[in-house]
Amino acid sequence: MSPDFLENELSAVRALMRETAGSGRGAGHERIAAALADLLGAGGKFLRPRILLLAGMTGSYAPERVRPLAAAVELLHTATLVHDDVIDDSPSRRGLPAVHERTGRKDAVLAGDWLFSRCFLLAAERTSPENARHLARAIDVIVSAELDQDACRWSFSPSVRSCLRKIGGKTATLFALAARAGAVECRASPRHVSALTRAAWSAGVAFQIQDDLLDWTGSEARTGKPVRRDLGEGLCTLPVALALRAEPKRMEGLLTPEAVRKGSGEEIERIARASGAFELASAQALRYRDRSLADLGRLPASYARDELARVFGSFVERDR
Amino acid sequence: MSPDFLENELSAVRALMRETAGSGRGAGHERIAAALADLLGAGGKFLRPRILLLAGMTGSYAPERVRPLAAAVELLHTATLVHDDVIDDSPSRRGLPAVHERTGRKDAVLAGDWLFSRCFLLAAERTSPENARHLARAIDVIVSAELDQDACRWSFSPSVRSCLRKIGGKTATLFALAARAGAVECRASPRHVSALTRAAWSAGVAFQIQDDLLDWTGSEARTGKPVRRDLGEGLCTLPVALALRAEPKRMEGLLTPEAVRKGSGEEIERIARASGAFELASAQALRYRDRSLADLGRLPASYARDELARVFGSFVERDR
Repeated sequence: MSPDFLENELSAVRALMRETAGSGRGAGHERIAAALADLLGAGGKFLRPRILLLAGMTGSYAPERVRPLAAAVELLHTATLVHDDVIDDSPSRRGLPAVHERTGRKDAVLAGDWLFSRCFLLAAERTSPENARHLARAIDVIVSAELDQDACRWSFSPSVRSCLRKIGGKTATLFALAARAGAVECRASPRHVSALTRAAWSAGVAFQIQDDLLDWTGSEARTGKPVRRDLGEGLCTLPVALALRAEPKRMEGLLTPEAVRKGSGEEIERIARASGAFELASAQALRYRDRSLADLGRLPASYARDELARVFGSFVERDR
Repeated sequence: MSPDFLENELSAVRALMRETAGSGRGAGHERIAAALADLLGAGGKFLRPRILLLAGMTGSYAPERVRPLAAAVELLHTATLVHDDVIDDSPSRRGLPAVHERTGRKDAVLAGDWLFSRCFLLAAERTSPENARHLARAIDVIVSAELDQDACRWSFSPSVRSCLRKIGGKTATLFALAARAGAVECRASPRHVSALTRAAWSAGVAFQIQDDLLDWTGSEARTGKPVRRDLGEGLCTLPVALALRAEPKRMEGLLTPEAVRKGSGEEIERIARASGAFELASAQALRYRDRSLADLGRLPASYARDELARVFGSFVERDR
């Protein structure tokens, strides 16, 4: 296993994914094809397939079984992005106009359904029944997390635990699924499957905390999405929860839709900065990163393990 | 097998379906639970599970394998209804407010995703890999048909063949899937599986033609949906295609969004009635009904076969 081998495998997964998503015929498919091609193109980080392939490489790597799984996981992720953007009415994704901005909301709902259906078909036809079940359960957890997130809009709480639970459902579930699926499919030992799954879960939490932070400290030019977008949507992210815990009185009245629309974001940022909320959130991310690396340490040394450590380690340093 | 047995089995499927759809926890699920409970309640015709169970009863009926499949198929159907209503912005479904009218559009998109995910999970965990694959392929066909339908809005064509193709993708695919899945899971002979699948397909076409007709000849009080709703959405149904073929000149200019909004529906109805389009569409429905019954005739006499014949035969006579 080598960097070249990994990149070749990723190219094969990308091709399979595009082939799968682009295989629809008829006028309807033509209308969504261009918008989806961009979304499935080079702009994405392709993290979930990367994790899945690397986890597989810690076992007896079996490309014909691993590639369809990796493509299915990324299609699932993409489906949730398309529906998220419709739901949040977000204008852009990865610096390009969101799918619904290009096709209209109707076709965007259907485009998401189409990606779900292709993901499920790939799972049912080309992966083991066990992994089809894992994938189905992950879809379930992710949709539940979305529903919860939507129900909790504009209800801000200083509970770090509840923030971390939401974070877990969103990002960590799919990272953990990717690692487990790749490892199981390549017959890694149960001990290694479990270490990889835990490592990916913790790395997913670290990744999402960093995402929450970038909503405040990132720039649109780098992240490809507007700053304080989460706040604008009424989502309670970790820095806000921490600021709320540190300065409940000063935060009062700043977290309503009206206040945010009128620009309370800058005051919230000042409070968060002064109260150390950003540093605390950063420290949380580092703690999860360390847990993740400790779990990877239970595997024997290999290119795949070290590359996973590099990928997981990079999550807390990224600026997009 | 008897009517009582069938009704008991259908009750068990309904209970499983509600349990599956209602098993979500958390604030998000609470918000959609009531709206979904109504949709999964007694108001629906529950046709697809009925077809699936009856097809199973022509073989060695295996309740523990058939019930989850029947519930999965109905969950899938319900998911498409929820997203359809969001997409079409339809105010009502089965005489009750549509899900998105009660939960908002965001939660309705997620509620549909949730039903898809529960359907996948049920299929992956409780049915055979073969049937999980059949189900995945059916989802694929249905979503493609929706995409096509959406792309063809306000493009009316006198082609009966193209109408029938659209009809096939929408309704007949899922009817055929239901019959095949029930029969396969209960080890009916390949000859019988094939006869049942064809019979259900033809019955589905007859059902949808009748639906198209009811858009013109039904009453909102009976059908639970506004008259000429399909026309209002720019969908080309069989009666319109036939009227367009018979009276292209008189139909000119009546089929634009503006004309329809201004009430061209009544003039279209007069033309369709005078040109015999309704009778012709009716005759097509009867032709498919007859094909369906002929295919059922290839099975040995049994309660299940005769009940399927009764159900399929009733499609062309229904007024809702």
